[in-house]
Order: sequence, then structure tokens, then C-alpha cells
Amino acid sequence: MQTPWDHRFAQRTQRLKASAIRELLKVTELPDVISFAGGLPAPEVFPVEEFKEACIRVLTDQGAIALQYGSTEGYQPLREMIARHATRYGVEISAENVMITSGSQQALDLIGKAFINRGDRVLVESPTYLGALQAWNTYGAEFVTVGTDDDGMNTDDIEEALRTGPKFIYVLPNFQNPMGVCMSLERRELLVEVADRYGVPIVEDDPYSQLRFEGKHLAAVEVIDARRRVQNGNYTGNVIYLSTFSKILAPGIRLAWVVAPPEVIRKLVLVKQGTDLHTATFNQIVAYEVGRHGFLDQHVKKICEVYRERRDVMIEALEKHMPDGITWTHPQGGLFLWARLPESCDATEMFPAAIKNKVAYVPGESFHPNGGGKNTMRLNFSYSKPEKINEGIVRLSNMLKDELCRTQKIHQGG
Amino acid sequence: MQTPWDHRFAQRTQRLKASAIRELLKVTELPDVISFAGGLPAPEVFPVEEFKEACIRVLTDQGAIALQYGSTEGYQPLREMIARHATRYGVEISAENVMITSGSQQALDLIGKAFINRGDRVLVESPTYLGALQAWNTYGAEFVTVGTDDDGMNTDDIEEALRTGPKFIYVLPNFQNPMGVCMSLERRELLVEVADRYGVPIVEDDPYSQLRFEGKHLAAVEVIDARRRVQNGNYTGNVIYLSTFSKILAPGIRLAWVVAPPEVIRKLVLVKQGTDLHTATFNQIVAYEVGRHGFLDQHVKKICEVYRERRDVMIEALEKHMPDGITWTHPQGGLFLWARLPESCDATEMFPAAIKNKVAYVPGESFHPNGGGKNTMRLNFSYSKPEKINEGIVRLSNMLKDELCRTQKIHQGG
Repeated sequence: MQTPWDHRFAQRTQRLKASAIRELLKVTELPDVISFAGGLPAPEVFPVEEFKEACIRVLTDQGAIALQYGSTEGYQPLREMIARHATRYGVEISAENVMITSGSQQALDLIGKAFINRGDRVLVESPTYLGALQAWNTYGAEFVTVGTDDDGMNTDDIEEALRTGPKFIYVLPNFQNPMGVCMSLERRELLVEVADRYGVPIVEDDPYSQLRFEGKHLAAVEVIDARRRVQNGNYTGNVIYLSTFSKILAPGIRLAWVVAPPEVIRKLVLVKQGTDLHTATFNQIVAYEVGRHGFLDQHVKKICEVYRERRDVMIEALEKHMPDGITWTHPQGGLFLWARLPESCDATEMFPAAIKNKVAYVPGESFHPNGGGKNTMRLNFSYSKPEKINEGIVRLSNMLKDELCRTQKIHQGG
Repeated sequence: MQTPWDHRFAQRTQRLKASAIRELLKVTELPDVISFAGGLPAPEVFPVEEFKEACIRVLTDQGAIALQYGSTEGYQPLREMIARHATRYGVEISAENVMITSGSQQALDLIGKAFINRGDRVLVESPTYLGALQAWNTYGAEFVTVGTDDDGMNTDDIEEALRTGPKFIYVLPNFQNPMGVCMSLERRELLVEVADRYGVPIVEDDPYSQLRFEGKHLAAVEVIDARRRVQNGNYTGNVIYLSTFSKILAPGIRLAWVVAPPEVIRKLVLVKQGTDLHTATFNQIVAYEVGRHGFLDQHVKKICEVYRERRDVMIEALEKHMPDGITWTHPQGGLFLWARLPESCDATEMFPAAIKNKVAYVPGESFHPNGGGKNTMRLNFSYSKPEKINEGIVRLSNMLKDELCRTQKIHQGG
């Protein structure tokens, strides 16, 4: 059906294409496909009973508030709870540093809307989180990249990238999506130092840091920045820090937060006001009720146990079944690991063969804003149950053996 | 605290100022002020018990789905329920015409993001809904206006406005915010005809149509458009139609919807994906559970009874207490009425005097994108209880009598 809207889309929308990757992934919803493609938490760890109790309590005691319009900044007790939690890691903030958002994706969108003029550069890792690229593409961002390896964002070439004058740096230091790697403490310190020297601020996206199965907690970039300044531990504001309830509670309530200087919060609030007025009051009060008595600490332990087992099963299966020439990261937490195939392989081209084998992954190419990574794939270990993970890796390995064999023949043939 | 973010805001953010009106309205939250300023539903009509039951049922039966990520388009059964509801009013649509949004404000934002290039004109009523102006200002919209009177958007001068080449027309035909008036059927028909002739599509914002206390339901612009085409009753797509659960259920769950041609829905889905991934799954399933067995029909009747009484009390009080020279609209539904003071009055200037008298309103000026309306004010009758409404109008009348007296003296003095 032709409508008068068809030729009226804004330029930014015309550039938007249905992401090839999302189109690919639709097939992963077929019932007998084992999918390592999504980024879904295990539904088995959703605290359903705690939610139920909190819903009843909130509606009984404060239904008139919970169902009413609320403030754009967010529910004050929840903001205070988040501020208290942050001080635990050694950075002093208060509720006026915190804004509640409708998921982290909205925080990324609001940051784009608040800061990015068409043509502005943003310094990102390559590969990096696809959702940030999507959010900021809309505002006409251009991406300057530095590589990421097993120690996270590679700071070796960062000065060259900084000399292009990016508006800000975007980094995922913990169990990075898509690679599952952590940025080393040395690199974090170097990043903070060099960002300060060039006067370029940092957006730190940190959805997974609490999902650490082993090893030592590493200080957030935000915390390192606070420590090295004169204020020593006081939040300095060079870093906008993002985190979320999606991975430690549940994504279906769309609840996340931004930590930023008060002046930035004030502007983000203005931007959010025109964007969706405020985040659902009901969800904020329920999350506060679920979390207020320290429930999250014990709950995170439970999630970590479940995910650790699943990661172990995946790595064991990879070691057992994968053909030679394929390597993978060994994440100490989070939801993902990252596999590297021989240089000659193209994980996007192989995707139909994987689906034929009833297994799915995300081809790594799409996480690279300026190309590259054709021979990589992201594998999620949080969602599928252990026996499925094992079976899925068997299927994936079989597919890869066939494909490697076929490629070799072609190479020999050519 | 100076931070490196301060000089990095995008141009669109620099133009954003804390709305004068919102700053004013902060004082209305003082405990002893009777506020007619907000647009809040009466908390007394929130269906708290139904929500509680639905939350328990949803979490018991489908907690793993309700707390998980969902699709950007929205929860399929809810989309189908909305499509069925629309056919009741004589326009045939299906779920693929429906997208769920995080409140109507988000629908306005997504429409702005999808369609508005900097400098694009949008044809709006004056006065019109402030939130639409806020949302579209961000994308650099310029507003072409036609007046609104007691019969809604004035179509007399609309062709002149259409010749400026607006991207679309924005209209609130039912119990318009801020005026509370309904667009007459003749004007709706004329709007549809002339919009079609000029090839300019329409965004119809309809949060209040179900809150009709008396008089006959008037066909939506969308329905009239569908009727006059060859397809006769089939949705033609010339109109993007918006409505919301905020006024018929509760605003604290942030749930609204867009009806649009499938191609527009596909684009809006792409835009929403980068904006907030999707609207909270939990809220969508709970709203579906609350609404699926026809509960909304009976509930809307209850809301109408409560609001009708409050409107009557307000109009009675206005008639009894207001000084001469002040007139007001007589809404047959919705949440607001609109008062006009003598031309010489400035409702913004009078605002501090009102607050001194412990009563608040929204000065009408702010609803006029290109100026005007200094002598008008919006009064909300849905939120305050009847006795408060009466007392508030007494206070407002006293303030106005004083101010009119003072103004007259100044005029005589000059």
C-alpha cells in the first residue's frame, strides 16, 4: 500500500536499514534451533516470587503513587539506593548524579541526542556493542576505532585516535559485549590518564561487572578517574557511567541508570522529558522494593553460579569438539564469549550452514563499525541450559569442520 | 563543578532550555497549593485491585516471558487487542498496523525522529499539546499554525498553511489539550478532504476520546479518512493515529500505541530499536491481562462519572465566583478546560499572585508555538477532589478580581 508517508521519512531514517544481523537472527527463533545468538539472561534466575511479593506490597501500600505520573529524573529512593551502591566501590556520588532510564539502550540514545552533532566522532572499541552504534548512527556519529584484544580496549594506538578530536570515548571495560573480555587495570589507568590529557571525556558502559564468576573485581574507569584527581574518591564527572537492572534482576522491566555530573543530568532530564516523559513509576518502585533489603547481593551470587556452570560447559565442549585453528576467549564473567576462526573464514557466509545444522550465533562482523572481524562470532552462554549448550557446540563444530573442509578444497582447487 | 562535558552538548541540546512553564510548576507541588496545573488522572480511579490480580496471574503463569526481553513492535496479543478495538469504530486494521510505545510522548518522539529533518514545517493547532512541540523542537521542526476555537482546529485558513508545504498536520480532535474542545464533524471532514487534496498526511493524537461524559461520539479523523476512500472502511494510511492507556488505565505503566501503515510501523520499529529496544514486557502483559475481558469498557464509565462530577463542580464554581470578562470552555469530556481573561491580562505575570493565593494553573502562552494566548490559562479538573476544586476556584477568582482591579487602576493611572 502506497501512502503519503512513504516519501516523507527524514534523512536519518532513510539511512536506517533493517540490520542484516537482526534479519538473520529471526530464524534463530525457530523452535529446534539452539541459539547462542541472543543476549538473553537465563529465565531460570528471574526472581519471580520476589517480584510477585513486591508488586502486591507496592500496589497495596502505594498504588496511587505507583500508577501515577512520576518525575523525569526517576524515583527518588531508587536513585538514592543506586548512589549508595556506587559509594561501595569507592566513588562518592549522590542522587543528583543519578538518572533512571528505560533500559541502557535509552541511556545511549539520550547521550547521543544530548551530545552528538552530525559528523561528530566517537572513539569506540572494535568490536563494540552494536546497540551503541545503532543509537548514535541516528545522530550522524562517525566512529574512530581502536582494537580490542584479550585485555580489552587496546590503548596502544589510542593517542592517534584521540588526535582526530572525538567528542567522547565509549568503553565497556567488564566482560565486554561482544568479546567477553575485561580491560586490564593498567589499560584502564592509561585510558583515564590519556583521556584527561587530551580533555576527552568517557562514557563507561558497565552492564555486567557484577556478574563476575572468578578473579578479582577491577576498579571501574569512573572510580580510577575519581581516585587520581585532587578530590580523591569524589566523583569528578569526567566519566558518564551506565549500568542496568537487566542482567541482575530482569530485562523485561526496562530499568537502567546513568551516573553523570549534575549539569549533565539536568540536560539529560530535559532531553528525556521530550523523549518519554519518564520511566514507568510502577517498575521503579517495584525494583526498589525488590532490591532495598540487600536482596540483589545474594541474587547476583545465584546468577553467577548458573552462568559459571554454563560457561564451563561451553568451554569444555569447545575444547572437545572444535576443529584446529579455532580459538575463543575465556571470560571470567558476563554472558558472552568470542570465537575466532581462521582468517580465510567468513562467519556471515557460514550462517545459513549453521542454521541448517540447527545452531545459531552472531557473526562478529556487525560489531565492527568500520569493517573487519569477518572470521569472528559471538556466542552467548547465559540463556541455554547446559545440555543444550553442549549439543549446540557439537552442531556448531560439525558445521565448522564441514565448512573448513570445503574451504580448503576450494583453496586447493583454486 | 566544571566538567569536560559542559562545552560538548549538541546544538539541539543547547537550544533546550528548562521550560519556563515546568520551572513555574515546581511550586505547584507545595502541599497547600491547590493545583489545576497538572494533567494527572485521579488516583482514586486507578484499578489497583485489578492490577494486583493481573500481576500475580502474569508472574505465576508466565513470569519467564514477562520478565524477559521482548519484541520492539510490542506484545502480540496486546497489539491484536488494540486492532480489534479499532475495528469497533469502523476502521479495519490488524496487529501489523500497531506498535506499542512507552507512553504517547515516545510515539511523538519516534515520529519526530522518523520524519522531521531540520527546518521541516509541521502544521499544528495554536494552542496545541506542549509535549509535541518539545518532542519535535529537538529535531529542528518549525511550526505553522492555525487557530483553535470552541469547535476545535479552525479549518478556515488551513489551505494557506498547507501551501507552506508542511511535512504533516498534527491535530487533537477530542477534548483537546489544552482547550478541552472537540473538533466538529464538519471540520474533521474538511480537514481530511483538504489534507488529501494537498497530499499532506495527518498525525491524530487521541488520548481522551473515550473520556466522553455526554454528547455523541464523533468519528476519528482516521475513520473519516478511511470512509471516504474507495476502500471504504479499510484503513488507508493517510493518518497516523495515537492513543494511550495513560488516561483509561494508568500513566505510571507508560503504555501507549501507534496505528500506522505497515511500512511506517516497520520504520518506527527500527527507530525504536535504537531508542529503547522495546517497551517493558511486564507492563504490556499486565495491561493485556487487565484489559482482555472487557474490563476497560466498564472502567471507562467509572472514570467518566468521576470526571463529569469534577467538571461540573469546576464550571459551577467558575460561574459563581469568576469576575466579569472571563470566559471558559465547556468540555464534554477529557481532563481540561480553558479560561480566557480580558485581552489586557497576562496569565504568566499573574502566576506568582496565584501561588500566593495557594492555587495554580498553566499559563496558556506556552501552548502557542509562535506566540499569543497571554490572556489564557489551562485548568485541570480530573485530579483534585470536588471540594478542593471549589476552594481552588474561589482562590483563583479572588486573585483575578484583585489583579483585574489593579490592572484597571494602572490603566486609569496611565
